[in-house]
Amino acid sequence: MIQGGQRGIRYNEGRGCAAFAETVVSSEKDTIGMGRGHLVIGQSGGATAVINASLVGAVRAAFAEDAIDSIYGARYGIEGVLRRDLVDLRQEPLGLWDALLTTPSAALGSCRYRLREGDAERAVTQLRDLGARYFLYIGGNDSADTAHQMALAAREMDYDLRVICVPKTIDNDLPETDHCPGYGSAGRFLALATMDSALCTESMPSHYPVKLIEVMGRDAGWLAATAALGKEREEDAPHLIYFPERPLSAERFLRDVREAHARYGQVVAVVAETVRDEQGQSLGALGSQGTDAFGHPLLSGAAQYLVSLVRAELGLRARFDKPGDLQRMSSACVSETDRAEAEAVGRAALRAAVAGETDKMVTLARAPGPEYACETGLTELARVANTLRPMPEEFITPEGTGVTEAFRRYALPLLGAALPQHARLVGVQA
Amino acid sequence: MIQGGQRGIRYNEGRGCAAFAETVVSSEKDTIGMGRGHLVIGQSGGATAVINASLVGAVRAAFAEDAIDSIYGARYGIEGVLRRDLVDLRQEPLGLWDALLTTPSAALGSCRYRLREGDAERAVTQLRDLGARYFLYIGGNDSADTAHQMALAAREMDYDLRVICVPKTIDNDLPETDHCPGYGSAGRFLALATMDSALCTESMPSHYPVKLIEVMGRDAGWLAATAALGKEREEDAPHLIYFPERPLSAERFLRDVREAHARYGQVVAVVAETVRDEQGQSLGALGSQGTDAFGHPLLSGAAQYLVSLVRAELGLRARFDKPGDLQRMSSACVSETDRAEAEAVGRAALRAAVAGETDKMVTLARAPGPEYACETGLTELARVANTLRPMPEEFITPEGTGVTEAFRRYALPLLGAALPQHARLVGVQA
Repeated sequence: MIQGGQRGIRYNEGRGCAAFAETVVSSEKDTIGMGRGHLVIGQSGGATAVINASLVGAVRAAFAEDAIDSIYGARYGIEGVLRRDLVDLRQEPLGLWDALLTTPSAALGSCRYRLREGDAERAVTQLRDLGARYFLYIGGNDSADTAHQMALAAREMDYDLRVICVPKTIDNDLPETDHCPGYGSAGRFLALATMDSALCTESMPSHYPVKLIEVMGRDAGWLAATAALGKEREEDAPHLIYFPERPLSAERFLRDVREAHARYGQVVAVVAETVRDEQGQSLGALGSQGTDAFGHPLLSGAAQYLVSLVRAELGLRARFDKPGDLQRMSSACVSETDRAEAEAVGRAALRAAVAGETDKMVTLARAPGPEYACETGLTELARVANTLRPMPEEFITPEGTGVTEAFRRYALPLLGAALPQHARLVGVQA
Repeated sequence: MIQGGQRGIRYNEGRGCAAFAETVVSSEKDTIGMGRGHLVIGQSGGATAVINASLVGAVRAAFAEDAIDSIYGARYGIEGVLRRDLVDLRQEPLGLWDALLTTPSAALGSCRYRLREGDAERAVTQLRDLGARYFLYIGGNDSADTAHQMALAAREMDYDLRVICVPKTIDNDLPETDHCPGYGSAGRFLALATMDSALCTESMPSHYPVKLIEVMGRDAGWLAATAALGKEREEDAPHLIYFPERPLSAERFLRDVREAHARYGQVVAVVAETVRDEQGQSLGALGSQGTDAFGHPLLSGAAQYLVSLVRAELGLRARFDKPGDLQRMSSACVSETDRAEAEAVGRAALRAAVAGETDKMVTLARAPGPEYACETGLTELARVANTLRPMPEEFITPEGTGVTEAFRRYALPLLGAALPQHARLVGVQA
């Protein structure tokens, strides 16, 4: 168990400063049970704007630990462990680590690889043959499952391997943690994108009255919800949000858009790419049943499909923005709070491993009090692997297309500095 | 004619500082030919991240001019003039103007309205009835045509109206000016978006090896070209750019992607949304010939169509980002150079009108010398209205899918501060 040590407070610039109570491990603990050993670290799953900050946090903490001998980076996550494709991170130029802090995406390469029969044992064997005693894995649900299986395999093989996961996902759907590094930056991008793009619709409502914005988030609406964080007045965008937690029928959607158009003269709707209809069919798939002139299957997406519906059924001009990978990667929209926390969970993972922990994931726990602050903690990987956390009911408004004040209180601090205030004319009629 | 006066130099923060030689009109000139009068100003066409800066520049210059009586904003461009939907800008709180400088989109509202028979005369009549002597119109090609017709109508009607256009378009396709305000910020967004999003593809090339990014730019490739401005090495994204100036066949595209994939192990391709095939058919339309399960016509886009092609013909997983309105609106990616120039052309337009100019558009002329600097000038609206400026041949590489050093020298200063340097591991194999 990690024991509380000194309290290291760090403040970020601007509003939304974060204070971390980083549990510092007493030095006697460092040498208990295991001597020096190599560290292997990997990145897994969809990259984020701050996943490299977790790598930097862990590697810099490793530099400071006598227990850590070589520091190896696994190329493309667990795939690099399995085929022993490793790079020696002690040979990187020292200036690299500062530069990586502000570089989005996974510098080691990432993967979406689900372990097959025997893979966990093979991976542990590779680590044992290498002399690695510490394995850190930065990722989401699937990565937690991979790490958990490796921890179990190491125990079976009686090899003293310390496996710690570092949480990472823009989807924010990991259980046991207040939130996930990567989410705040993607949320900041989407809040800003919605504020900015909606002003475009507002400037010419008679020309393009309806806009859809398609967002990621897998089966949870956490990310879609962030689109509302720049909203100040009822008439501000987004007017409608469609969460994966709630099935959506074409009829319901068209009724919502018609009503919002009548009320606001324009409609900006945010739709999660995974939204399904009441039969469980994804809207994107519903829009993908045609073929093009050459007989190729036509692929659509939820927003594209809904835009087609609006044009065909309501006769309103509509278009969509699909930021795609930009929402997970935007270097210009990183939340400084998110980046600092991503670095902190990387550091905490390394220290936990050195302190003798294994089969755990680092968590973030929000400290009580009016000022936002988080401290790192640990949870069992078995409690995380393959478990998803949907948006709680109390974060979605009763009609199902908006977010509550409770969600705003939860999410706004994660976005870092205050969102800009866009100006509008008072507009005194001449 | 505007005569050269003092030289007002302003420097922006960071690299890419801009110096303006703003032609200051001598005060004797101000009162020649016309006494006090009202100003009407409007915004037109697709909004940009800095079109409000032009509004601020013009309005603040008007505050300083004795010749200007009331300052009216036309709501939704020429539509507001025609239906006398005007707001009194002298009644806005003074703090608004600073806030508008950093607010994207058109605060007055914009329009895409092509004048019909008699509209120009009706618009001038409205202005005459109001007592307006100055009309400033911030917009692109269509807006220049509107303003030109109004200037001609005023002359016919023997009404002394001074009509000046303020250039604005992310498409950068206005003739007679080195570049157009709005372009630098959209370019900065796309250069960053391509750098960031490409790192995502690079982190998992075996999972999603092909990515398309669909960009705007009407019939010119200026904007598509900016996606390459963060590229430093041959293997960096974008690997392929498809310009509206060059027809694209499915065969050519698939061959390019196959070759790039073989060479780099991944492909990031940027495609202008208006790219056409050799028969002049837009690729988006080619992908829009099916219907969905309910018989609604399916709409596609160029990137969506090309993604379908890659999957069907090459068997490679592919996806696309379509930033849509975000590329014209992003408040987080504004080029400070662009913003300062947008403000400067607004100011210059007001001063030109007061100095007696009419039927003109403000231009930006690049000063010779190693440091980037621009000065404002004027050109006849007749030379601008309905005239497009395609990318010059020397800005596109011979094979037609990349940009030249000459383009980089032209465009990089417009993006403002230096682009961030993304870090990569050296990667010494362990």
